[in-house]
Amino acid sequence: MKVEIISIGDELLIGQVVNTNAAWMGEQLTDAGIEVIRITAVSDRAEDIKDAMHLASQHADAVLITGGLGPTNDDITKTVLCEYFDTVLENHVPTYLHIEAMFAKRGYKFTERNRQQSMLPKGCTILPNSVGTAPGMLFERGDTIFISMPGVPMEMKAIMSEEAIPFLKRKNNGSAIFRHTVITHGVGESWLAERIAGWEESLPENVKLAYLPRPGMVRLRITATGNDVQMLKDQVMGFTAELHKIIPELIIGYNEDTMESVVMQLLLEQNKTLSVAESCTGGYIAQLMTAMAGVSAVFKGGVVAYENSVKQNLLGVSAKALEAHGAVSREVVIEMARGIMESTGSDMAVATSGIAGPSGGTKEKPVGTVWIAIANGDAVRAEKFFFGGNRERVIKQSALKALNMVREELIISK
Amino acid sequence: MKVEIISIGDELLIGQVVNTNAAWMGEQLTDAGIEVIRITAVSDRAEDIKDAMHLASQHADAVLITGGLGPTNDDITKTVLCEYFDTVLENHVPTYLHIEAMFAKRGYKFTERNRQQSMLPKGCTILPNSVGTAPGMLFERGDTIFISMPGVPMEMKAIMSEEAIPFLKRKNNGSAIFRHTVITHGVGESWLAERIAGWEESLPENVKLAYLPRPGMVRLRITATGNDVQMLKDQVMGFTAELHKIIPELIIGYNEDTMESVVMQLLLEQNKTLSVAESCTGGYIAQLMTAMAGVSAVFKGGVVAYENSVKQNLLGVSAKALEAHGAVSREVVIEMARGIMESTGSDMAVATSGIAGPSGGTKEKPVGTVWIAIANGDAVRAEKFFFGGNRERVIKQSALKALNMVREELIISK
Repeated sequence: MKVEIISIGDELLIGQVVNTNAAWMGEQLTDAGIEVIRITAVSDRAEDIKDAMHLASQHADAVLITGGLGPTNDDITKTVLCEYFDTVLENHVPTYLHIEAMFAKRGYKFTERNRQQSMLPKGCTILPNSVGTAPGMLFERGDTIFISMPGVPMEMKAIMSEEAIPFLKRKNNGSAIFRHTVITHGVGESWLAERIAGWEESLPENVKLAYLPRPGMVRLRITATGNDVQMLKDQVMGFTAELHKIIPELIIGYNEDTMESVVMQLLLEQNKTLSVAESCTGGYIAQLMTAMAGVSAVFKGGVVAYENSVKQNLLGVSAKALEAHGAVSREVVIEMARGIMESTGSDMAVATSGIAGPSGGTKEKPVGTVWIAIANGDAVRAEKFFFGGNRERVIKQSALKALNMVREELIISK
Repeated sequence: MKVEIISIGDELLIGQVVNTNAAWMGEQLTDAGIEVIRITAVSDRAEDIKDAMHLASQHADAVLITGGLGPTNDDITKTVLCEYFDTVLENHVPTYLHIEAMFAKRGYKFTERNRQQSMLPKGCTILPNSVGTAPGMLFERGDTIFISMPGVPMEMKAIMSEEAIPFLKRKNNGSAIFRHTVITHGVGESWLAERIAGWEESLPENVKLAYLPRPGMVRLRITATGNDVQMLKDQVMGFTAELHKIIPELIIGYNEDTMESVVMQLLLEQNKTLSVAESCTGGYIAQLMTAMAGVSAVFKGGVVAYENSVKQNLLGVSAKALEAHGAVSREVVIEMARGIMESTGSDMAVATSGIAGPSGGTKEKPVGTVWIAIANGDAVRAEKFFFGGNRERVIKQSALKALNMVREELIISK
């Protein structure tokens, strides 16, 4: 089954909102074995929406539409659907009662605008919205299915998971897809491609390889298409095992793994705790770790030592080291790591000190210079890096490298 | 001038990568007075790319294509361009020399794959890539302009800013657009719509209003179209001033302002410093602040006190308060704020302690319960919130509310 996604909203075209909805939908549909052939973002104008629907129906078996169902005046999708499917709005009683009940429960004022949300196109199948007021609407015209959903991410996700995907899965028959992503860290795309060229050339017709570079990472996505998911899985996992023999030191994880999730997993396995002392990364490492549920078993916390006085007062960095070597130095970053390990009583600690820019660089220490130290019991080591790019990139690459040093330390000390 | 953006890559369709490129392009083009009418994401298949180009050329004056120009085998855009424009690849000497020089400068190995990047379609206009190896390519067919660029964000941005946008601006003649976004915090979309209904109805035909809800925020985008940018600007700013009279307490900023940038600006104006003590937000507030260049003048740092022992050792929270009231309490969050203010010597401090979930909730303190304290000199106040949604949402809403409390404090104490 081939699906096209149409995302409605001027805010997408002018770049005020990034289309994360379509990405989430693409992921869920792919996981359900349904192929997404195109994602189109169009304006709030009626003609543009109808034009996109018409084009989509020429190639897709199902067209999923999001956006333009809110209570405010700029949302016009329902009117467009009535025109496109030649029908009219009528009050849908179960939806009316659902909206009324939601407002009563939350103690909100029930306005005329909210009341209008139960006016829905006659003849379509209503897909209930368990978390909001605007339901999904399903139309079938000829061989094509159209499903319209609100653009609010939480509501779209509820309708997709509970209604749209189960419906599409029932309609879908046969074709299977399996994908597996290998996450590498440490070398660039071209260099990686050279190293695995022989392996890549050995892949059969039904197996596709894609390189997905991200700052500090290259993800290798292997996709196999055929009829039997289990056979495809065996095939892909076989190729993955071969790949692992060629570049064992570069592979840090698979699929949804992130550097921080791999670190958390290793800490849990080894029953160790971590703390952080962050200067240039400014809390970014702590935030990556604490975004994960269950991290409290292995993460104690840390200090964001942005100003030098904070490095001295909260991390016990010596005035001598700061004066003699400056904040961005091997000596200071080692004292930071030791300091946070001592005050939190953690088993390991990682510390960063660098110049994220855009200002603050010198000839000896240009913007992008970052020292990272890792302490593990009595052992401590520090390394200097030069990261390119703007402030955001320097911060992100520093955090990634710091976590990778923790990962390596955990693997070596295992 | 009407532009369509075509983003190439299976990774976009399966949701492995979010299409941030298109959002950035949409923003830049809109700022240049160029209208984006559609954004289409297609697979790496030749037929799909050619099909999308053909469709785009029917409505758009210019088609901007990104992706598929890298050095690896899954990138096929150049071949497709040759087929579509009926031409062949030939070595482009300036590009060859540029690539060779880039590799020499970085000390990288120059591989056969890199060499192939200077093989470019004969007859197109080459748009130099100042930061990478794959240049942009410009074709004109009939009245339509096609520009193909690499998908690597940094490289696409360089070619867009230095080559594509200046070219399109020269081609564009006449029509003007002006947009202005008002950022509100504190009430939901429906409620806001009720309050400004009269104002909204007074807007003339050429002025459009859009509601863009985000967690904890509603952005109101006002867009005016016409022929004279200055006239449109005066018109929109007039309506904005009227809006400000209706909802002064809800407006926190405009356009690219964020809660953290507004806080930084107020701190700079009042020459005050801030520090943070974060439990449930886990470094998220510190990271938001330190992501901004120039923040070191007003932000001292903070403590991520994830474990209770860290609250005691690094923030001086009393065992008594922890035992009597628990970590998520008015007493503890106030001690956290006072503790970090004292140890960093900052003028103000904000502290968070709550239950982000998914586990850790109790009947008295369910998941989403968050205490936030703000200290300003000798004054200190704390407030309790209940945030809905998952862990990520609780963390983000807590950080937003904490920064809003800093903002309010700065406005009151001004």
